[in-house]
Amino acid sequence: MRHQVCIIGGGPAGLLLSLLLRRAGIDAVVLERRSRDYVLSRIRAGVLEQGLCDMLRQAGIGSRMDAEGFVHDGTILTAHGTTVHIDFKTLTGKSVMIYGQTEVTHDLYDELDRIGAPVFHEAEDVAIHDADTEAPHVTFTHRGQTHRVDCDYIAGCDGFHGVSRNAIPPSVRREFESVYPFGWLGILAETPPVADELVYSGHERGFALCSMRNANLSRHYLQVPLTDKPENWSDQAFWTELRRRLPAHLAETLVSGPSIEKSIAPLRSFISEPMSWGRIYLAGDAAHIVPPTGAKGLNLAASDVFYLSRALIAQYAGEAQLLQDYSATALARVWKASRFSWSMTRMLHEFPAEGEFLARMQAAEVDYLAHSTAAQTALAENYVGLPY
Amino acid sequence: MRHQVCIIGGGPAGLLLSLLLRRAGIDAVVLERRSRDYVLSRIRAGVLEQGLCDMLRQAGIGSRMDAEGFVHDGTILTAHGTTVHIDFKTLTGKSVMIYGQTEVTHDLYDELDRIGAPVFHEAEDVAIHDADTEAPHVTFTHRGQTHRVDCDYIAGCDGFHGVSRNAIPPSVRREFESVYPFGWLGILAETPPVADELVYSGHERGFALCSMRNANLSRHYLQVPLTDKPENWSDQAFWTELRRRLPAHLAETLVSGPSIEKSIAPLRSFISEPMSWGRIYLAGDAAHIVPPTGAKGLNLAASDVFYLSRALIAQYAGEAQLLQDYSATALARVWKASRFSWSMTRMLHEFPAEGEFLARMQAAEVDYLAHSTAAQTALAENYVGLPY
Repeated sequence: MRHQVCIIGGGPAGLLLSLLLRRAGIDAVVLERRSRDYVLSRIRAGVLEQGLCDMLRQAGIGSRMDAEGFVHDGTILTAHGTTVHIDFKTLTGKSVMIYGQTEVTHDLYDELDRIGAPVFHEAEDVAIHDADTEAPHVTFTHRGQTHRVDCDYIAGCDGFHGVSRNAIPPSVRREFESVYPFGWLGILAETPPVADELVYSGHERGFALCSMRNANLSRHYLQVPLTDKPENWSDQAFWTELRRRLPAHLAETLVSGPSIEKSIAPLRSFISEPMSWGRIYLAGDAAHIVPPTGAKGLNLAASDVFYLSRALIAQYAGEAQLLQDYSATALARVWKASRFSWSMTRMLHEFPAEGEFLARMQAAEVDYLAHSTAAQTALAENYVGLPY
Repeated sequence: MRHQVCIIGGGPAGLLLSLLLRRAGIDAVVLERRSRDYVLSRIRAGVLEQGLCDMLRQAGIGSRMDAEGFVHDGTILTAHGTTVHIDFKTLTGKSVMIYGQTEVTHDLYDELDRIGAPVFHEAEDVAIHDADTEAPHVTFTHRGQTHRVDCDYIAGCDGFHGVSRNAIPPSVRREFESVYPFGWLGILAETPPVADELVYSGHERGFALCSMRNANLSRHYLQVPLTDKPENWSDQAFWTELRRRLPAHLAETLVSGPSIEKSIAPLRSFISEPMSWGRIYLAGDAAHIVPPTGAKGLNLAASDVFYLSRALIAQYAGEAQLLQDYSATALARVWKASRFSWSMTRMLHEFPAEGEFLARMQAAEVDYLAHSTAAQTALAENYVGLPY
């Protein structure tokens, strides 16, 4: 088969890219290794920057998000006895939207179905060929049959463990990585959120985050050692520990309940340069991973897709510069968001190996933040998303 | 002899405290271990926050500073190919003053001489007694004679190696420290400054700072390994290395010349809590050391002296609260300035042991700074000094 663009990976990045290209009259196919049900069952991020919300609206799939999502004009940051309300709206004029990645994916599927855009699920053995020529192609196996996609461009949206990044020769790649000495134990529970906004809590026992999906679905996290196992954390133990890491007035109002899901994720910062090679263009986790502090993962994938869709549309209109610059353009924003995720992670987590001095620097940073409009604005403008 | 306040240490902190107390009718004596010539020959900081300038003016010794000092409305920060002008004046409404610590000390001596305030130089074997009683006293040897000062309060302004901090029992003290894996090689040279403002330069070969004392006296620094010796750095080698670490347009205009002084100082962050115990009140380096990045050492000593002088004056007027709160009040600002010095040091120096990821985070931080008014404002408000 032949398509103008072959998109490897059917997560939100690949699906959104497919839709944006299709809206501009560019024909793309999506190859996804997993089943549709599997993709829709993944519990992931839930904080959307205004830039991503605007993209979804412009792509014609913002109505359910606008009806069911929750606009958050700020967040609560509490650490070492100091609580700061970061008022995004007042400080930056912008807000964020609470709307699960799963819901975004759902809306994308619905629209792609409606317009008949091709998405292959359970596409196995995906392989990229001749990416450094003007006639690249991708092969894959689907329901026992081998297929070949001839295309102009390949978009690698297949995540950290996908094939796209590794199709770029190691000799031209540089990888940067920082692994944090802890993970996040997350639970999903049908309980009301502890506050109207997300609560980021730095505590001597470890970081905690109280997040939410809707008025009766909470998503909470605890910093835990990487050696911990989810099955060793009872629901009771989770709620008890979460209460300990919250300020008293929040601990008192916290409603507990049985967990629907419980898992531990490691925290990692990772960036691979460049984000393009030959006819391959990477977007999202295929090129970079951020720790979840600050909720930048999905939003960075979205800004990559913004730059890449714009560049491909320009390319087909005869303007080559944006696509040539894609890697540099996307990376400039990726590095800044990575820095923000890293610094927010550093500010709020316990790093016992680094000693008391760092703990005091963290407390001083939160104290400074509580008293400085400039520092609050810097945090807020990163949180709502730096401009594309 | 009897004095209301016995000030141990005749650097700028002790001398300024003596003058401020004297202006309020409180009698203080200063005991300094070194000779007056030695104190005046020490080359130290040269960037005064507006708060310190205002204190000097209010104490009646600001006229030479205002005549001979240089007001700097900004600073130049350059790293990894990005140059940012931090415009203090526009961002915060404040400026800093370039005026050497040596000159401040000189002005303080002149005024203390004029009003006949007692300062003992070469006071040896200074020892604090009964500091946890209402009748403390200090003994010292001067020109072979032993003296005893009976006093109400003891101000420990005798620096990191002084006796005052160690007169507080270790059981009530907590010390926090971070030692950086490099030092600053500094030279003083009778050459014009490389720019109208200080230049902070992050570079893959190491940090550099181009500073100044006046129009024909420059003070420059290079990050060097702690194993380096000043005598192994020829003037020629210094200037060559400094040029390498500056952007081309500054390297070209840099005028070199013979060094008057050359030394290597280690970088350290250190804070001892509490800053008071019994009748002892610590101020300046006796309680805390910051790395020189951001020029906070002298300025922190000044804010300590501000709080302590105000508290002692209130105490003698019958209001005890400020003196009771002195340690907590001073420490709140100390921790914030320590955080700033630490974060600016972390942003601009090479930390080879921490790998490429940190280097890229530093570059991303400078890139972000270059594009964010909020981040520039946060840096500027710390640099000109957080409010007392």
